[in-house]
Amino acid sequence: MRIGILGAGQLSRMLALSGIPLGFTFSFYEPNIEHCVNGLGSLIHKPYTDEKALTNFVNACDVITYENENIPVDTAQYIASLKPLYPNVLSLQTTQDRLLEKTLFEKLNIQTVPFQKIDSLHELELFLEKNSFPVVIKKRRQGYDGKGQLKLSSANDLSLLTDDFLNNCIVESYISFDREVSIIAVRNSTGDCRYYDICENEHKNGVLNQTFNKINDPMFKQAQQYINRIIEALDYVGCLAFEFFQKEDQLFANELAPRVHNSGHWTIEGSHTSQFENHLRAICNLHLGNTESKGVYQMINLLGKIPDSASLLSLDYLHLHHYQKSERANRKVGHLCLPVNPITQSYAEQLKKLLSV
Amino acid sequence: MRIGILGAGQLSRMLALSGIPLGFTFSFYEPNIEHCVNGLGSLIHKPYTDEKALTNFVNACDVITYENENIPVDTAQYIASLKPLYPNVLSLQTTQDRLLEKTLFEKLNIQTVPFQKIDSLHELELFLEKNSFPVVIKKRRQGYDGKGQLKLSSANDLSLLTDDFLNNCIVESYISFDREVSIIAVRNSTGDCRYYDICENEHKNGVLNQTFNKINDPMFKQAQQYINRIIEALDYVGCLAFEFFQKEDQLFANELAPRVHNSGHWTIEGSHTSQFENHLRAICNLHLGNTESKGVYQMINLLGKIPDSASLLSLDYLHLHHYQKSERANRKVGHLCLPVNPITQSYAEQLKKLLSV
Repeated sequence: MRIGILGAGQLSRMLALSGIPLGFTFSFYEPNIEHCVNGLGSLIHKPYTDEKALTNFVNACDVITYENENIPVDTAQYIASLKPLYPNVLSLQTTQDRLLEKTLFEKLNIQTVPFQKIDSLHELELFLEKNSFPVVIKKRRQGYDGKGQLKLSSANDLSLLTDDFLNNCIVESYISFDREVSIIAVRNSTGDCRYYDICENEHKNGVLNQTFNKINDPMFKQAQQYINRIIEALDYVGCLAFEFFQKEDQLFANELAPRVHNSGHWTIEGSHTSQFENHLRAICNLHLGNTESKGVYQMINLLGKIPDSASLLSLDYLHLHHYQKSERANRKVGHLCLPVNPITQSYAEQLKKLLSV
Repeated sequence: MRIGILGAGQLSRMLALSGIPLGFTFSFYEPNIEHCVNGLGSLIHKPYTDEKALTNFVNACDVITYENENIPVDTAQYIASLKPLYPNVLSLQTTQDRLLEKTLFEKLNIQTVPFQKIDSLHELELFLEKNSFPVVIKKRRQGYDGKGQLKLSSANDLSLLTDDFLNNCIVESYISFDREVSIIAVRNSTGDCRYYDICENEHKNGVLNQTFNKINDPMFKQAQQYINRIIEALDYVGCLAFEFFQKEDQLFANELAPRVHNSGHWTIEGSHTSQFENHLRAICNLHLGNTESKGVYQMINLLGKIPDSASLLSLDYLHLHHYQKSERANRKVGHLCLPVNPITQSYAEQLKKLLSV
């Protein structure tokens, strides 16, 4: 199979690395010059609006997918008119707009915090008449890794805001959650569906810091029911990630990602079939691989720069995934994965020391 | 690190796939047009005697290794005069010549079957005065996958032979073994050494058919002692595979491979660190990754052609490694790997049916 991917970041890189052993070949389409798929397939650097370049790209592929949800819907629609595109346009459209996404949660009876569309300070004030501080304002589009979000703790913070800033936003109640969890499901177009363990995610400054998979998590059933409703509503094909806030024994839907997800990187070592391989199997309508975990794994994002590789690799059991991206503050440039069971306290301390440099 | 590999077959392919996540880049040097490293690094197609091309290749690398032992010693020596080459020239030289290899076994008190250098029918007859049929004649060089070998069951078979055929051969007693096993060790230049489980190997027509790793195999200690003697004698760096015939509780040394080895492919899924990643760590003098196995795994070679991929992938737990090579009778074109534990009888039957097509 010839797989086309829109985007050429680390998710595309790991998709290709998991698909090459299956005999697949890859083409990437990336508007930005920076990428990290060097050598893993052919690469087109053109804007998403260039129909001629898109046509050439699509002609060289059997099926197309994407590594991020900020692809213009027009681009997706054009591609889908020529070749199979998974996840479908509806899934992309819904998940790239927080308002459409939250509205879908509401429609499907998936519990979420109170939210409202806002385009002006006045609309924000109307929300605050019924809901108390703190609240979070989020841009409807293009937000990721905590970007495009602002938390307002009290009425004092309102003075910072202008109508201009508030254009195309949603406001939602801030929930003081006990933990953040996510579930990843994968479905092929025959309708077969599999699920990975729920993950417990820790964020730092809005960016995922680390993830642990939780075998037999008590919230699994609830999360699975919720994600199934989304999959059915969107006729979804591929990997889908669903992030939740948990407060006591309640899940509150936060957001969807219509793709492989950072909280699923542990599946490369920790599951019988990685999310990357299963995403490819799904979009090619192949049988899905087994998603059982092989134990509890810890995934740690490397942000900004890669600590000394040689020192990291001196830790037994540790797996390094280097994205070969240029270093920049808070940028995801790699990740680590390690099984939790054999880790001793002195090992954990050594690792902590290496990561704090 | 910039890794150079002599050869561009499936072993180079899997080395690159395991090294890219570590941030390594790859260059391949392959005299033959056929290769299976498309896109995984730069590729030079020149003879091993082309000094200028070799120099250019070496200049673009920090360290050089090889995926097969039939590299001319002159080429290896030339490369080693410019950059670190691992395994070293002595290791290459010894393991590419069955006579030097067997002589080393003898010198290190590693048990082997009776053998002798022969260059003529007369020398063969001298061997047969002291040793009985059956015997095996093996070309000293270039033999692999059962090629360059001939079994003589009785004196009748002698009429088939000419002095010309017998030039540059060894003869050895044929042993009616109970099983064939191999051990893979890996050592970095600091001297750290790790070992994978012993593997039980089944051959068909001289080609490895399938491998099972054997946790706590009773012969492990003996095999480990033997391979340690070789490593020390050759000042060996990298993965080294050592194949044995076992008869009752005795190991008889068969042959060495100074590289990653087909009987270690199961380590991609079945061990915490694959032989491929550890070979790269070793030649870069990094700490070696943990070599414990995660269970018993079965590796099955795909010879000649890949059965229908979609059907293979319909078997849960099964991992396909497609080498993207052109199909040819008895050629290694891919392999499968699966954990043995969850496999039911009906699963095994389905797999057998798919493989027999």
